[in-house]
Amino acid sequence: MPQHPFDWIDAQHQRQLAAGLVRTLRPRPADSALVDLAGNDYLGLTRHPEVTEAAARAARRWGAGATGSRLVTGTTALHARLEESLAEFCGFEAALVFSSGYAANLAAVTALTGPPGPDGTGALLVCDEGNHASLIDGCRLARAEKAVVPHADPAAFRKAMAAHPGRALAVTDSVFSVDGDAAPLRALAEACRESGAALLVDDAHGLGVLGEGGRGALHAAGLAGADDVVATVTLSKSLGSQGGAVLGPAKVITHLVSNARTFIFDTGLAPAAAGAALEALAVLRREPERTTRVRAVADELHRRVTAAGLPAVRPDAAVVSVRAPSPEAAVRWAADCRDAGVAVGCFRPPSVPDGISRLRLTARADLSDGQVARAAETIVRTAPAC
Amino acid sequence: MPQHPFDWIDAQHQRQLAAGLVRTLRPRPADSALVDLAGNDYLGLTRHPEVTEAAARAARRWGAGATGSRLVTGTTALHARLEESLAEFCGFEAALVFSSGYAANLAAVTALTGPPGPDGTGALLVCDEGNHASLIDGCRLARAEKAVVPHADPAAFRKAMAAHPGRALAVTDSVFSVDGDAAPLRALAEACRESGAALLVDDAHGLGVLGEGGRGALHAAGLAGADDVVATVTLSKSLGSQGGAVLGPAKVITHLVSNARTFIFDTGLAPAAAGAALEALAVLRREPERTTRVRAVADELHRRVTAAGLPAVRPDAAVVSVRAPSPEAAVRWAADCRDAGVAVGCFRPPSVPDGISRLRLTARADLSDGQVARAAETIVRTAPAC
Ligand SMILES: Cc1ncc(COP(=O)(O)O)c(C=O)c1O
Ligand SMILES: Cc1ncc(COP(=O)(O)O)c(C=O)c1O
Repeated sequence: MPQHPFDWIDAQHQRQLAAGLVRTLRPRPADSALVDLAGNDYLGLTRHPEVTEAAARAARRWGAGATGSRLVTGTTALHARLEESLAEFCGFEAALVFSSGYAANLAAVTALTGPPGPDGTGALLVCDEGNHASLIDGCRLARAEKAVVPHADPAAFRKAMAAHPGRALAVTDSVFSVDGDAAPLRALAEACRESGAALLVDDAHGLGVLGEGGRGALHAAGLAGADDVVATVTLSKSLGSQGGAVLGPAKVITHLVSNARTFIFDTGLAPAAAGAALEALAVLRREPERTTRVRAVADELHRRVTAAGLPAVRPDAAVVSVRAPSPEAAVRWAADCRDAGVAVGCFRPPSVPDGISRLRLTARADLSDGQVARAAETIVRTAPAC
Repeated sequence: MPQHPFDWIDAQHQRQLAAGLVRTLRPRPADSALVDLAGNDYLGLTRHPEVTEAAARAARRWGAGATGSRLVTGTTALHARLEESLAEFCGFEAALVFSSGYAANLAAVTALTGPPGPDGTGALLVCDEGNHASLIDGCRLARAEKAVVPHADPAAFRKAMAAHPGRALAVTDSVFSVDGDAAPLRALAEACRESGAALLVDDAHGLGVLGEGGRGALHAAGLAGADDVVATVTLSKSLGSQGGAVLGPAKVITHLVSNARTFIFDTGLAPAAAGAALEALAVLRREPERTTRVRAVADELHRRVTAAGLPAVRPDAAVVSVRAPSPEAAVRWAADCRDAGVAVGCFRPPSVPDGISRLRLTARADLSDGQVARAAETIVRTAPAC
């Protein structure tokens, strides 16, 4: 008599419960009195009236869905406008919009790996060990050799690429999502150029936050529009919407259209999300001070929590990461903050690659100085003894 | 002097051009006089005023984006309501919503593979060779043995599972997206039960089209809510929106929340898309005749094109597939239809697993008898000599 086919889930659930690894969903209301330092709405645009109106308008004009793959019926003139605007803003030749940043990363990594070279040698993917899950999954899907190198270490990238006879693609986040630290993009680009490798950068946390007027980490590093650099972004953080995009040379974008599976076999992004992101870009062009403000808020949060003796990483963008002594302490700390009116992120294994639990604070351009001060005070007051 | 890192793209582009494999995007206007037999808006809900209003309302009330992972800030009460409504409608214990059907499939396949059994034997994934790309990518990502079996062949599933000592998961589309034919779900479930395997069914093209009132292929087969069956659906076809969901036993859904990477590391579905899908479900409950109508339209399209001697597959749902003699002929045929006012899908390699090019006609509940007759007449009139 065979076992029930899902018995193993019960056993795994018990193990995960005992290890404190079971997550539960907490549906939130539309309006909340909490000060939100947990979401990624860095510029405060997700509820900006012009952005939500643009979403509403797009749904009415174009329909609630794109109705098909981008290759069939799913490309509207609105998608095309968003792609032009994103490319122009970030300083790249062309852009391609996906239904999520996750899908954009899967597409970029797999389709840029390409076939083996003329000598039969396959491509090498060199990945920072701190890369986002979607880049890691892209690498798992790609048919290529992989080298995972130590965090933010251009010399390690250089060494891995030098040891490989064929083509190589270096893959990194621009701002790492857990600790909020920036990748050494200029040094990475230099290492890539020395070995004739291409560079793929996930700028999910850089767009809107870094670079002139929020044009992103690649713009800041003087790499936007380079013919050997490809960026991915999400529309779901600074742009307050949903979706993702790949930015790069026009020929790379053309290549993705015909070859990227998460482009070809996925329904196009919903018009409301495309319209909202397009409008968010327009607001950002008009109000570049949102970018300076979100960084000032991050710096101020960091200054206040470290002044009180808490171990926090200096923010390179909008994310401030504060270490917690244990997963249990982190969970309790986050709960205490919430009870005191402040929502903070709580990252713990297995969502953190190094096993260290933290509170993850995200700055927002639309927080007032008073909110920032009170939020920091709450975090400090509820901190566990270290 | 190293090559330029993207030179290989030029070479591949030339090869693909020569083979007729380069796709180009054709942005569509908001309003078009074309009769659309190319999109997947089976029930005609994507532009239904109540559905688009629900999208607009959700964007205004909840914001343009979900602001974070479903585990952090990305679960709103609207997401929870949609999950309840989907589970209830389709007859499953619980549901979990993702940003796309693609992401839902990646999640279901990878997280239901699970760890090796107590004896160290890993799980086996048994896949129909006609499965959708997202299921195939899920299998590639999963750390498990794989067996790809001939199309719609329960005996082949049975044989593959019998040969494997450990746990197994059978994976199939309910309605195959290329030819529109249905999987033998009852026989597959029986084969699974004989060997203690679980069954995962992608009901992307069944929801809204098959089963009582559009409750889907699993409901039609008496398998909805079974404790060894998991379904995935998309919100982007019959429900006219964007997103996807996994439906199954509550413990499976709980397991996905803590373990599925495309759930944990992806921003939640945009509120507008969730709101639109929820409203589409409400319309469908109220107007179950949409389901009978879309199937009648598919049958009528099939009847008319086969009566004229064209080789078409009898539709098990809303997709009618008509063979074309070559990729070039298919492209020309689709263009001729478009010039005559009818948009049809054109599937050709590599988007078709068997290398056979076809026109893909999708029925819609909101087409009039006159539109169906004229569309069929156009397809017949422009058909290439076989
Ligand atoms: C660095 C990074 N890349 C990609 C993603 C995925 O983007 P999306 O949520 O739009 O799918 C995220 C977060 O969600 C991220 O933090
Ligand atoms: C059978 C099937 N499964 C899954 C998907 C993916 O769903 P989505 O487009 O919502 O990502 C599609 C098509 O897009 C499909 O045809």
